[in-house]
Amino acid sequence: MNFASDNWSGAAPEIMEAVFRANEGAVPSYGGDDLTKKVEAKFAELFERDCAVYLVTTGGAANGLALSVLTPPYGMILCHEESHVQMDECAGPEFFTGGAKLLPVAGAAGKLTPAAVEKALAGFPDRPPHGAPATVLSLTQGTECGTMYSVAELTALCETAHQAGLSVHMDGARFANAVAATGAAPAELSWKAGVDVLSFGGSKNGCLMAEAVVFFDKALARDFEFRRKRAGHLPAKLRFIAAQLDAYLESGLWLKLASHANAMARKLSGGLAAIDGVEISYPTEINAVFACFPDGVAEKLREQGAAFYPWITPGDPASGRMQRLICSFKTTDEDVQTFLKAVSKLA
Amino acid sequence: MNFASDNWSGAAPEIMEAVFRANEGAVPSYGGDDLTKKVEAKFAELFERDCAVYLVTTGGAANGLALSVLTPPYGMILCHEESHVQMDECAGPEFFTGGAKLLPVAGAAGKLTPAAVEKALAGFPDRPPHGAPATVLSLTQGTECGTMYSVAELTALCETAHQAGLSVHMDGARFANAVAATGAAPAELSWKAGVDVLSFGGSKNGCLMAEAVVFFDKALARDFEFRRKRAGHLPAKLRFIAAQLDAYLESGLWLKLASHANAMARKLSGGLAAIDGVEISYPTEINAVFACFPDGVAEKLREQGAAFYPWITPGDPASGRMQRLICSFKTTDEDVQTFLKAVSKLA
Amino acid sequence: MNFASDNWSGAAPEIMEAVFRANEGAVPSYGGDDLTKKVEAKFAELFERDCAVYLVTTGGAANGLALSVLTPPYGMILCHEESHVQMDECAGPEFFTGGAKLLPVAGAAGKLTPAAVEKALAGFPDRPPHGAPATVLSLTQGTECGTMYSVAELTALCETAHQAGLSVHMDGARFANAVAATGAAPAELSWKAGVDVLSFGGSKNGCLMAEAVVFFDKALARDFEFRRKRAGHLPAKLRFIAAQLDAYLESGLWLKLASHANAMARKLSGGLAAIDGVEISYPTEINAVFACFPDGVAEKLREQGAAFYPWITPGDPASGRMQRLICSFKTTDEDVQTFLKAVSKLA
Amino acid sequence: MNFASDNWSGAAPEIMEAVFRANEGAVPSYGGDDLTKKVEAKFAELFERDCAVYLVTTGGAANGLALSVLTPPYGMILCHEESHVQMDECAGPEFFTGGAKLLPVAGAAGKLTPAAVEKALAGFPDRPPHGAPATVLSLTQGTECGTMYSVAELTALCETAHQAGLSVHMDGARFANAVAATGAAPAELSWKAGVDVLSFGGSKNGCLMAEAVVFFDKALARDFEFRRKRAGHLPAKLRFIAAQLDAYLESGLWLKLASHANAMARKLSGGLAAIDGVEISYPTEINAVFACFPDGVAEKLREQGAAFYPWITPGDPASGRMQRLICSFKTTDEDVQTFLKAVSKLA
Repeated sequence: MNFASDNWSGAAPEIMEAVFRANEGAVPSYGGDDLTKKVEAKFAELFERDCAVYLVTTGGAANGLALSVLTPPYGMILCHEESHVQMDECAGPEFFTGGAKLLPVAGAAGKLTPAAVEKALAGFPDRPPHGAPATVLSLTQGTECGTMYSVAELTALCETAHQAGLSVHMDGARFANAVAATGAAPAELSWKAGVDVLSFGGSKNGCLMAEAVVFFDKALARDFEFRRKRAGHLPAKLRFIAAQLDAYLESGLWLKLASHANAMARKLSGGLAAIDGVEISYPTEINAVFACFPDGVAEKLREQGAAFYPWITPGDPASGRMQRLICSFKTTDEDVQTFLKAVSKLA
Repeated sequence: MNFASDNWSGAAPEIMEAVFRANEGAVPSYGGDDLTKKVEAKFAELFERDCAVYLVTTGGAANGLALSVLTPPYGMILCHEESHVQMDECAGPEFFTGGAKLLPVAGAAGKLTPAAVEKALAGFPDRPPHGAPATVLSLTQGTECGTMYSVAELTALCETAHQAGLSVHMDGARFANAVAATGAAPAELSWKAGVDVLSFGGSKNGCLMAEAVVFFDKALARDFEFRRKRAGHLPAKLRFIAAQLDAYLESGLWLKLASHANAMARKLSGGLAAIDGVEISYPTEINAVFACFPDGVAEKLREQGAAFYPWITPGDPASGRMQRLICSFKTTDEDVQTFLKAVSKLA
Repeated sequence: MNFASDNWSGAAPEIMEAVFRANEGAVPSYGGDDLTKKVEAKFAELFERDCAVYLVTTGGAANGLALSVLTPPYGMILCHEESHVQMDECAGPEFFTGGAKLLPVAGAAGKLTPAAVEKALAGFPDRPPHGAPATVLSLTQGTECGTMYSVAELTALCETAHQAGLSVHMDGARFANAVAATGAAPAELSWKAGVDVLSFGGSKNGCLMAEAVVFFDKALARDFEFRRKRAGHLPAKLRFIAAQLDAYLESGLWLKLASHANAMARKLSGGLAAIDGVEISYPTEINAVFACFPDGVAEKLREQGAAFYPWITPGDPASGRMQRLICSFKTTDEDVQTFLKAVSKLA
Repeated sequence: MNFASDNWSGAAPEIMEAVFRANEGAVPSYGGDDLTKKVEAKFAELFERDCAVYLVTTGGAANGLALSVLTPPYGMILCHEESHVQMDECAGPEFFTGGAKLLPVAGAAGKLTPAAVEKALAGFPDRPPHGAPATVLSLTQGTECGTMYSVAELTALCETAHQAGLSVHMDGARFANAVAATGAAPAELSWKAGVDVLSFGGSKNGCLMAEAVVFFDKALARDFEFRRKRAGHLPAKLRFIAAQLDAYLESGLWLKLASHANAMARKLSGGLAAIDGVEISYPTEINAVFACFPDGVAEKLREQGAAFYPWITPGDPASGRMQRLICSFKTTDEDVQTFLKAVSKLA
């Protein structure tokens, strides 16, 4: 009964096999290999656009490096107050950018709105050189709360950002889940909506460790390769990252894995909602379920071996009681049923 | 009718003369002079305690350097969302600390409360190594909103911080105004209440440019002198900074100047409160008055040559309408009366 | 005929299989898994000492993070002028340390001597707070020039460093080759000689991407885990790094792989030395051969498909003409013979 | 007998009076005042060119901030191995630039040559993204060794730098002494020779604390004001810095002061050269004399109250024995004669 994180699961077999295959021959290092070039081309095809693509091993590196290219060190990045860049990267964005400021913005169910962004900007007006000038809006798609932005919502947010002179970064650690859930084309959920740079995640959805930073405007990518190198994020044998993403993008595997995780989460959410005393906190739109259990139930579930984490939300009265349950490409129907039965007995 | 800022005023004559006097002879540079040593001793006397004292030229340097000693680069500093370190230093604290995170916390009238600090900490719980660990609470005394903390309030805040393992930094750009207003001893408003490091301001209260960073625990100061030097904040002719603070602390000049500014602000506030349609936004406790004028009045006052700035407060409905009027050691009774008359005619 | 780099080779089969095996079950992320703990224990055994071990994916990360723990941001790191930290990490150490200074020191055949270190320190004397205080000596073992330090040489260097108050960091990207070549115990070539922190490399010797930072004094490691996280160097599925090192250290695989690479280099070096007109530039002590070919020969070898890089040495008259040929665990006897024959025909 | 440093002297009377005069009225802060604008115009006139001028209080700030605008954080700055940026700013340039690398280059008598720069670049070739790309050449005029570059030397150096794609920064802490000594126009010794940005010093030559960063290409200055602010180097009462430089540049005062210091140094140098056993180490071209005294003489001079520092030069056999004697605008003929007599008696 593992619902702790989508990163507790290992790699999908197709991806593991691709890594195996990549281990042949002597191959130029640092991205000079054919596989890396092939993956770059795949991204261009996937996003229907020539783009600059850089592979890294972690989401923290992808986000930090992407942001470091979008903002000068004295700039300010607006982000959701529960976003990964704000809460979970140990001040990584501040490190990678050389000291940019993060301005956390509140929003229901992990989502920002144009109004919230405008209000945040109005509360931190441009007064050069006193206030750190706002330079980037960082969005997460799908969000940390198991929700996602529609194309229309994204478009409106990006418009708000661009009108205020901000670039838009998207943390797409769960971009696959959002694409699978909306059915929208990757391009529609990114650059067509106004996203400038995307952290495209693989690690939470069946890769061993593989993320890609995708710049839709290649000119923006200017000095990314220098920044990646000095941060120690250019593995010599980059082909092993490329191999993962090559398999990940092949024949829609990435969406197949994400769709499964989403479906398991919907099933789990539906099952929980039907149990008396359990409240679903946020709409279950991707692969995570947020729920409040009756007193004592979460503890007992954990005693029975279920793995999941409480979710802390600044200012939310349910905070602390709320639990996060994540499904992955490996979650089985049986996992879900076993857990639901366990809850039913306790609730 | 200058109420724009206490830093529009020049230097007090006593301080200017001290700078003049310091210009004699060949004197060791970089703080090796007698005057610097004398000032250090004066601070020890003033605060009734041996302490480590470092002189700098700006409040931004004092705050940034002080914070850089209190937190590792991956730590998190809690501060008021309207504080100078958050709003007015162009991401300076992030720069000086090498990338620490600032967590802005809301609070009425520029003040934090133990409950607000606890709630902020609860919303950003310690999950090493994921979240940036909270390391410092930075308070402003007197606040950016013309208010101040009582000894009891300070003590409670410091206790909250220390219990959570945080150090306490005090931005004392207007510490003189707070001491003058409360009548409390400097020690009571600082280390006796639990403050670990104080940015002691002179520049806003009659110095040309002079601030002191005061470490009440000398061991904490460890590497301050290296950090000050590499940031270009050790002027060769440090005696000219020392001379200012020597005169500033002599015979209570600093409190005389601050008391005058406070008194002018009280008079201004009282006068405004008596005018129909003018609302005083915050208690006038030090040398700044925050007020909302009837529509169009602020603009007309500016046309007549009055200088003052609007004050932006995130999330405050009065924000934008609210005006900040600051008095300084140089503000005269006539300045205040002229302004009040002008308002009366317009309101 | 690939002698370009030991990182052009893929992974050893034993290591690839271990990665495969690690892909079972749902396992706690971020190092909470059993495999990571097992590897930590293996390092303790290998080095005959309890130590703090942190896994990362690249040598640049290992070096930068290790150094960031050893020096304050205003400190100075002495290193060889041809070292990887100075020449090949795109100012990575400066980035990770938050701005520490690197002082490049010259030395024959990639090696530093106590005299050279003492002279460098004497030329940059301690004058707090003006000069950046020397805080770390960073050594490479085996060196970038295919040589290595004996236990006695290392001990003398570490003593020099410690007497001057410096910590000692060892870049051990090719530590395996040095251990294999000397036959000395890992402990003798590290902490027993005075090394404080070791970047223990796997990536150049048969791992996919796996390095370990080993702190022989656990207290020194204080904040490493925070620094690793904020730099994006804590992969969620850390078990896949652990699996590599687990296999790498199992039954002496790491030394078997390195011994083979060393042996191939010796054979290559011996063969080249016997060819008229070819000069061996440095003693071939580990897995790299440095040689000068007669004019035009290097170019023709490359035309025939041989891969190897010219080696640039500041101030060396042979610089530019000198070529670096690296052998790896995968280099075959046939590779060497083919290359030697090609050289013979051209020289 | 103070020959310790030109910064032991206080301020010239004309400058002190200007500071006094600037203390009138309420004046916009942060450079919004008329005096700051007037000084900016004076610099344009002085350099026969429209330029962007920013005032700061220290040479370390001027250098660090100037460099931070010229190089990305992963770039490399070439400088003389005895330069102030390398030896005396406690890794300040690394701090301000966010981690750029400094590459120290040797050169006789404090001076670089095109050949030395070319050799240094050849020894650190461009291999993106591995090596930190060389981005800036930082020169000092007059040098730390009391010498200076001719217009022709400067032009050749700047040409070398620009051809390699580097910008040129000039540390002009003693620019006044160089201009006074050569008689060349300020423009000839700066932008006409190819200098992109100049740290124009006042503090060592009669100001209290006043330096100006002069960008000859205004477009280069882009984000300087943000960087100055976040580094705490924008004093609120900037007029007090402006007042110093206004008086400094008025009627050639800056050159009058520097000429005097230079003349005293020439007299001192000539007198010392005539004493048996004293060797002049470098040509005395500006206001500093470098000399080796017979054994024991320097110590005895210090016992008699003379103040001067030994000078350490990496790799120089005379290093440690060599003494630096600096004259300032305040040095008198009597000071020089008294010192020469004292030496004569002892030598």
